[in-house]
Amino acid sequence: MKREFYSGIRYLCTSVFFVVCTIIGNAQKSNDMESKIDSILSQMTLKEKVDLCHAQSKFSTKGVERLGIPEVWMADGPHGVRAEISWDSWNYAGWTNDSITAFPVLTCLASTFRPELAGQYGFSLGEEARYRKKDVLLGPGVNIYRTPLNGRNFEYMGEDPFLASVMAVPYIKGVQKNGVAACVKHYALNNQEKWRSLINVELSDRALHEIYLPAFKASVQEAGVWSIMGAYNKVRGQYATHNEFLNNDILKTKWNFDGVVISDWSAAHSTTEAALYGLDMEMGTGTDGLGSNVKNHYDYYYLANPFLEKLKNNEIPESIVDDKARRILRLMFRTNMNPNRPLGRVNNQEHIDVAYKVATEGIVLLKNEDEFFPIQDSKGLTIAVIGENATRAMSAGGGSSELKPKFEISPLEGIKKRYKNATILHSMGYETGPSEYNRIVPGKLNADSLRTKAIEIAKQADVVLFIGGLNKSNSQDCEGNDRKAFGLPFNQDNIINEIHEVNQNLGVIIVSGNAVDMPWLSKVKGLIESWYLGSVTGIAMADVISGKVNPSGKLPFSFPKRLEDNSAHYFGESSYPGDGVNQYYQDDILVGYRWHDTKKIKPLFAFGYGKSYTTFELSNIAANKKKYDKDGTIEVTCDVSNTGEVDGAEVVQVYVGKPNSKVDRAKKELKGFAKVALKQGEKKTVTIAIDISKLKYYDTGISDWNLELGNYDIYVGNASDNIIKKSTIKIE
Amino acid sequence: MKREFYSGIRYLCTSVFFVVCTIIGNAQKSNDMESKIDSILSQMTLKEKVDLCHAQSKFSTKGVERLGIPEVWMADGPHGVRAEISWDSWNYAGWTNDSITAFPVLTCLASTFRPELAGQYGFSLGEEARYRKKDVLLGPGVNIYRTPLNGRNFEYMGEDPFLASVMAVPYIKGVQKNGVAACVKHYALNNQEKWRSLINVELSDRALHEIYLPAFKASVQEAGVWSIMGAYNKVRGQYATHNEFLNNDILKTKWNFDGVVISDWSAAHSTTEAALYGLDMEMGTGTDGLGSNVKNHYDYYYLANPFLEKLKNNEIPESIVDDKARRILRLMFRTNMNPNRPLGRVNNQEHIDVAYKVATEGIVLLKNEDEFFPIQDSKGLTIAVIGENATRAMSAGGGSSELKPKFEISPLEGIKKRYKNATILHSMGYETGPSEYNRIVPGKLNADSLRTKAIEIAKQADVVLFIGGLNKSNSQDCEGNDRKAFGLPFNQDNIINEIHEVNQNLGVIIVSGNAVDMPWLSKVKGLIESWYLGSVTGIAMADVISGKVNPSGKLPFSFPKRLEDNSAHYFGESSYPGDGVNQYYQDDILVGYRWHDTKKIKPLFAFGYGKSYTTFELSNIAANKKKYDKDGTIEVTCDVSNTGEVDGAEVVQVYVGKPNSKVDRAKKELKGFAKVALKQGEKKTVTIAIDISKLKYYDTGISDWNLELGNYDIYVGNASDNIIKKSTIKIE
Repeated sequence: MKREFYSGIRYLCTSVFFVVCTIIGNAQKSNDMESKIDSILSQMTLKEKVDLCHAQSKFSTKGVERLGIPEVWMADGPHGVRAEISWDSWNYAGWTNDSITAFPVLTCLASTFRPELAGQYGFSLGEEARYRKKDVLLGPGVNIYRTPLNGRNFEYMGEDPFLASVMAVPYIKGVQKNGVAACVKHYALNNQEKWRSLINVELSDRALHEIYLPAFKASVQEAGVWSIMGAYNKVRGQYATHNEFLNNDILKTKWNFDGVVISDWSAAHSTTEAALYGLDMEMGTGTDGLGSNVKNHYDYYYLANPFLEKLKNNEIPESIVDDKARRILRLMFRTNMNPNRPLGRVNNQEHIDVAYKVATEGIVLLKNEDEFFPIQDSKGLTIAVIGENATRAMSAGGGSSELKPKFEISPLEGIKKRYKNATILHSMGYETGPSEYNRIVPGKLNADSLRTKAIEIAKQADVVLFIGGLNKSNSQDCEGNDRKAFGLPFNQDNIINEIHEVNQNLGVIIVSGNAVDMPWLSKVKGLIESWYLGSVTGIAMADVISGKVNPSGKLPFSFPKRLEDNSAHYFGESSYPGDGVNQYYQDDILVGYRWHDTKKIKPLFAFGYGKSYTTFELSNIAANKKKYDKDGTIEVTCDVSNTGEVDGAEVVQVYVGKPNSKVDRAKKELKGFAKVALKQGEKKTVTIAIDISKLKYYDTGISDWNLELGNYDIYVGNASDNIIKKSTIKIE
Repeated sequence: MKREFYSGIRYLCTSVFFVVCTIIGNAQKSNDMESKIDSILSQMTLKEKVDLCHAQSKFSTKGVERLGIPEVWMADGPHGVRAEISWDSWNYAGWTNDSITAFPVLTCLASTFRPELAGQYGFSLGEEARYRKKDVLLGPGVNIYRTPLNGRNFEYMGEDPFLASVMAVPYIKGVQKNGVAACVKHYALNNQEKWRSLINVELSDRALHEIYLPAFKASVQEAGVWSIMGAYNKVRGQYATHNEFLNNDILKTKWNFDGVVISDWSAAHSTTEAALYGLDMEMGTGTDGLGSNVKNHYDYYYLANPFLEKLKNNEIPESIVDDKARRILRLMFRTNMNPNRPLGRVNNQEHIDVAYKVATEGIVLLKNEDEFFPIQDSKGLTIAVIGENATRAMSAGGGSSELKPKFEISPLEGIKKRYKNATILHSMGYETGPSEYNRIVPGKLNADSLRTKAIEIAKQADVVLFIGGLNKSNSQDCEGNDRKAFGLPFNQDNIINEIHEVNQNLGVIIVSGNAVDMPWLSKVKGLIESWYLGSVTGIAMADVISGKVNPSGKLPFSFPKRLEDNSAHYFGESSYPGDGVNQYYQDDILVGYRWHDTKKIKPLFAFGYGKSYTTFELSNIAANKKKYDKDGTIEVTCDVSNTGEVDGAEVVQVYVGKPNSKVDRAKKELKGFAKVALKQGEKKTVTIAIDISKLKYYDTGISDWNLELGNYDIYVGNASDNIIKKSTIKIE
């Protein structure tokens, strides 16, 4: 019989416990952090390491509870923190503390052309994620807008890799200031939703590096993003989520990414590939399909028991799981093990202000014949508001980016609030039913009577605002499927035409995240692209319509006249959407305006285009030198004058082209921009700096970036198709 | 048209945000904290203050999301962190990350007579709560054991206010070291479950202050507990949860409690009383009854909209809600707004070690005729293990203290593990079905065949261990109801008798949290009270049975021979359980051993009693002086020798009595104790200090504690009924 009186010393001196306490006190120094991670790893069992690498629920992963290493909790999405999801189903959990600020979609953010707003957006969003106790926020999305049919374009930042990069970096930094990891997605080439879970993307190295990867690279190297999400699709024959080339060769080796690769939900397909080809955290596998009925189905994940078995059998070396665990612990030290992270906030006025600022600066005025906009409020004026999107809540639907906002002001509400004197009439015109992720959109519901009523009020009105476009239902602007057609759904084209027959004082507001066909364009006097604006939708829209705010947004992607004018569609089905197995990016580096410019196919509305209620003059445009060496910086200066009647803001855009290049080149590429606010009559000089190194192309001969010497054309304008001055410089 | 370019300065300089950031950096200084709370309060709306004061879900309350003030999350209970409950129903949430260490029940902790173990218990539990992201742990329970029928006694620490106080203080300090608030409960006089939601307790001031409040007072004044839970019952005509006398006069004024009074779940009944009489946070109201079908039923809480209305109408002054909000913010600064709190741990070996230590030191050996225990493992020995409690999981059931342990080793498993050589036979003997909170216990299920089989194996065995007692079903050791009878349920008495007829080498292990009738006591050779031991149940039990551990637990309450020998029952139904409206504590200050001692009613087993496998001798017992002044300290020394064959531990207990007092007194009261571990043959001297001030009685003439001068008797022994030496000292 042995008496074992309790030893307080053993109890209190557990080494890991003290390691953790010490670390979190000062995890600033990277070396410190790494050695502390070493110490933790040395005390973890193989199973505990494996446990870090896969989900334990829909949106969380295990910690090491005996060592005080916390769980990791994640949340969708890029425009706001998604409502709480159930532990093990896609049903919402039914909590009442998860209403948040819905920020405008990322396409709208891109349209602001204001990186500092992206920083405020990211910081605000990070605060909301932090308050909601999330360690990882699944955003931003930086996939390139390749086709207007992609159901998920609204979550991304347009067709230009430079613009997407410049906007993503401050967003990520802003999120991460809160001790919340951003998770840039979807890496890579998830540029369509159709067949997303199986389509194999084939493309050139140049298209990959010059078009599709720069925003990811900037997220890693400039923003220092702490996690990245592997895409569903295959790339060059291997699933992107565990792709040796993308994850090992490029991301973790070339770019030195030290964070965590998280799979998209059920994007993993193989234990060996996931283990060896760079996936660190597996999420969502099989929970919707086979295995979801099994109680402990998370144990069957590719990176769960099967991974453990292969590690035990030495089929996979332990260094592989050590690397994954190290990355995950590193993420923890940056987030939930960082005692200095702030507490976050939700639904505060500052967040609403940021949302409003992004919304009002992102709305794009596309057409304004006879100064249709702004519409002054006045007694006796009757405005007919027609279209389902005037009242439709757009934070619902769209897939994983769906939000549960504290409030969402509809366009109609916003207009009624803004117009105190005018009479506002309203009719839906058409109706499509609720937004649901997997919902098949119905044909027409009550179409005839709704349309009849719309025409009636259009007749009575002095001015008609048709507020239509797309919505967040399946096969529109929604995850999981692409749009079926370029045109507006629900017979909207006909309704617009019919309205025009009874009232020609007609403006259209398109609510969408994509370009749409506009066969009625010549018939409407005013046209606004408003995007999805989240909580402040109606207020922001009404403030632009009424002129309280002067629009200053610029298109982050081209509107083609016809779908086949778009680069992806030009080459037919092998290019988009592929044959169900493969697709070939035959448009190569000529995506978006690069295509339109180079192939001289005029778009309906060009990249960088957007009107104002005032007029601007760009003058005295000049580069600071004629000749540069390869380490130099081009400084382009430009005087911008507000020559119209009201205050406003203009985006000066600098594109660079390489004439007579030895490789194929786009005619010009965006390399710098500056948005400048000018009071009526005011003039300012802006300087836009472009590092010569940014003019490199991806040289497949050396598998690296290379600078061509010689002449370059500098294009300065306020849209990609409105160049005020072209000049030439030389690199020696 | 006004342009409103975004002001970064406004965005970044929101004062509260910075206040919060600054505060959490250094909330050490109390003055700092209070002035920062002032600053936050000054920025809160009336509604936001009210929102802090009531639940938003089953176990959480709102923060101020716009100001970054976090929510408060709570969890049952005293013996381990309860599994996750659904947002708005009592169903479990179905999470898989909420398995924890189930610690032995608090009655077992009290039986250890080792305050330092209570500290380790509390610290370990606090770590588990912290890892589980709980800000408030709803424990410990310190209600006084008044009747063996109270269904909830197992959650408390016995019948003696001194023992309960001395054990509660380190428990609370231990929990709170983790930045998790303990919530001492149930304040006050929730000493029975029958009619708990309505019964009105009437008692003398002396009984209140001398018996029922000391553990609460010590929790506040010595442990600095951050929250306290108001009880269901009424006290002197007013619900305890909003009781002017208990909360305002005593707790917040006399004791200077600066923490939060939290209602028991649905213990609040009036807006005005809750507002004015000291309730700070209202939980659980009506969610099981009227109103639970209403979507936003939390808004209908007494301290929700009705409170807001009365504040707006000036029926209740704003200072009232300010005080509540201040207390709640103070709790937050101590918990979820304290950046220095550690991360916690769960299911680590150290916690299991603490659970094991408490279990093995808390088990009480009550009878050991012919050295029945320990039972040596040997080839050829056949042990029959009979009784449902040999295999029954006891962490399930019992009400809110129910747990979901990572593992729970049953007695039978533990015995099989410990006895490698002996043959272990097993039969349930009886079966009662699963433990459920609201379950009516069935009569007999398969009773005849199970008993027949038990008798068969008893015949075959060399030794029989009957492992029975109570369980966690309704009307046994379970919240919500009291036991219906003093005797063992499920016909166990008869089964024991029948076993004895076929095998007299019989030991009984009672698994319970209460004293039970033992009509068969003379027939059994060995008797152990094992309590509910949580995760380590079987291991701890088998280690005591086998002699790997020498038992050292002492009873924290008296076992009466008959129910009517218990003080509460002596006076009939008006004393217990009352008439359904009122009950009168006619036993007054003579509770537990005070009653048995003073009234000379011998108990079956006395408070402080517990045997060992070795023998001890107490000698050279002396107080350091004969005379003391009123500020003095009595130091009692005692030599303790281990005179038996094995190592062991003894609890030296010092009781003090006041002969010829001018007021009624118990014959003696526990005033000090020390547990001393002694190797075989070893002798140690212990010194037990008793401040003279602890000998005061509550003087109703002055409504305060008062010290009587004159002679006092000092009793030293190893059980309340085994006094080795009585001496007399004088206070002048």
